[in-house]
Amino acid sequence: MKEYRVAVVGATGMVGQAMREILEERGFPVSGLRLLASQRSRGRRFAFRGDEVEVEVLDEDSFRGIDLALFSAGAPIAKRFAPIAVEAGALVVDNSSAFRMDEGIPLVVPEVNPQDAFAHSGIIANPNCSTIQMVVVLKPLHDRSPIRRVIVSTYQSVSGTGKDAVEELEAQTREAQEGREPVARVYPHPIAFNCVPHIDVFLPGGYTREEMKMVGETRKIMGLPDLPVSATAVRVPVFTGHSESVNVEFAEAIEADEARNILQGAPGVEVVDDPENAVYPLALDAAGKDPCFVGRIRPDTSCPRALNLWIVSDNLRKGAALNAVQIAELVSGL
Amino acid sequence: MKEYRVAVVGATGMVGQAMREILEERGFPVSGLRLLASQRSRGRRFAFRGDEVEVEVLDEDSFRGIDLALFSAGAPIAKRFAPIAVEAGALVVDNSSAFRMDEGIPLVVPEVNPQDAFAHSGIIANPNCSTIQMVVVLKPLHDRSPIRRVIVSTYQSVSGTGKDAVEELEAQTREAQEGREPVARVYPHPIAFNCVPHIDVFLPGGYTREEMKMVGETRKIMGLPDLPVSATAVRVPVFTGHSESVNVEFAEAIEADEARNILQGAPGVEVVDDPENAVYPLALDAAGKDPCFVGRIRPDTSCPRALNLWIVSDNLRKGAALNAVQIAELVSGL
Repeated sequence: MKEYRVAVVGATGMVGQAMREILEERGFPVSGLRLLASQRSRGRRFAFRGDEVEVEVLDEDSFRGIDLALFSAGAPIAKRFAPIAVEAGALVVDNSSAFRMDEGIPLVVPEVNPQDAFAHSGIIANPNCSTIQMVVVLKPLHDRSPIRRVIVSTYQSVSGTGKDAVEELEAQTREAQEGREPVARVYPHPIAFNCVPHIDVFLPGGYTREEMKMVGETRKIMGLPDLPVSATAVRVPVFTGHSESVNVEFAEAIEADEARNILQGAPGVEVVDDPENAVYPLALDAAGKDPCFVGRIRPDTSCPRALNLWIVSDNLRKGAALNAVQIAELVSGL
Repeated sequence: MKEYRVAVVGATGMVGQAMREILEERGFPVSGLRLLASQRSRGRRFAFRGDEVEVEVLDEDSFRGIDLALFSAGAPIAKRFAPIAVEAGALVVDNSSAFRMDEGIPLVVPEVNPQDAFAHSGIIANPNCSTIQMVVVLKPLHDRSPIRRVIVSTYQSVSGTGKDAVEELEAQTREAQEGREPVARVYPHPIAFNCVPHIDVFLPGGYTREEMKMVGETRKIMGLPDLPVSATAVRVPVFTGHSESVNVEFAEAIEADEARNILQGAPGVEVVDDPENAVYPLALDAAGKDPCFVGRIRPDTSCPRALNLWIVSDNLRKGAALNAVQIAELVSGL
């Protein structure tokens, strides 16, 4: 079997670390691993298959001999270094928003649009976390009855922002418990014991970039450039696991039972839906797991052709690192 | 000015205490206050206008001489004692779900359907917290262009459940910080650092009673018995303040700016909507305040006749105790 020399760019971040762990967990055929990060992290060491790998500083020579570069270092780094990695002969899977909406660049969720991955010119974009978990669940339903409209409200965890945000939620939680004023640095307002309807920056028109990512990326991944999508993205005091309340309207009604059956057989989906026994997806349960969990599947009381769904997944895994590794597996024919 | 002998039933609960405080804050003309609760709370004392009032045990004689009885003691207590209070000559404003959907009983939000209050036969029902804050905002928009459909996802705080739930969130937060397994007693799952899509009990059809309250009560209060409403009710780790992501479709489009103008002049509403400066309603800011705060007012990207709104209010005040006192003020002509 072919083996791959793999680089992880942004290797010390939460997603970068999950990428390294998932490469190992899934037995990805790595013949050599290069962990790349900024000067600040030089010399840190991480375990990989029983060995220790030292973090190197990302520079223009970092990609020599690399076959696969998994980027999770933000859009500016991706814009600068992904073309260098491609030039050096690597396939780049980039988790930032840098290339997602570029016309020539595939935006891929392997369960949804695997065929798109093969049309790459060296770079494949990994979608936004909140989009991935939604389209994994929507696609098999769309194959049964075309989707006409999606209205989603999210409940997003702080690990989606990164380590600083995780530490901020921990610190603010302690501050609140001790009766002190919580200090907000990462977010514009305290996130402990609060809900903040503001993820990424606001764009003209009153939507955040996170919300418009859910609109644009869902359309691109599902190949439905005119699909009506409306999103409200909200940060909640949860460490890991994004939850989503999704209202989806179909061309023809799908019964809740039929939707449940379709989803039970769908790749990457796990149905967790026995409300009478208090069984439904929960962020705390999803953290550390791979599937997109879906439950609360029920007919919309306001529209006979719509269903309501509650979708939960680990934003660091399927929402980021796992999906990136799955893209690499797909393109490598693994 | 006429003065009223007032009883608060369930006086030691979170809403009961807020009722007492709000009666004092608003200068409601109380000539005598009776605080009623179960045997367990007998003898507890609470301040009221500089005096101390001792809690008495609720029984069949509790309402002698009472003009106004504010109930916040759950449906079984309301069903048993509200008729006794009415018989004794009191006006009952009941915060439980006992009578809300009864045909002869008005369900009132003073900013929305004040006229309904006067058709009472002794009992007026106070709506569910998540319904109140939504209809206060929807009504002035409906007066401009009739509402055709509402899709709401809630982010509800634990104080809506009561003191036990507040203590549970505090305890679980400490347990999680100390690396211990959180113990769930009040809720079926841990609420600390989690989102639980389960409020009140599940009904046949897959909706919770909380969700169906939002459907039925919204229709009754707005006088629109066929209004299509769809709700997903979610408990979040917030102490006080319910947030709601509301998608509302109108007969004819309302521009976001016009909606903002309408809402700026609407009773009980405060517009908090300057997203570019990170200004929008937040549960932490709403706690302890009276208005229904609305922001993130923007055109729905999936339907030209719809708007998205973010509505936040203190569930103990406007969502419960304040609305009950306002009903009493309305009917008393204050």
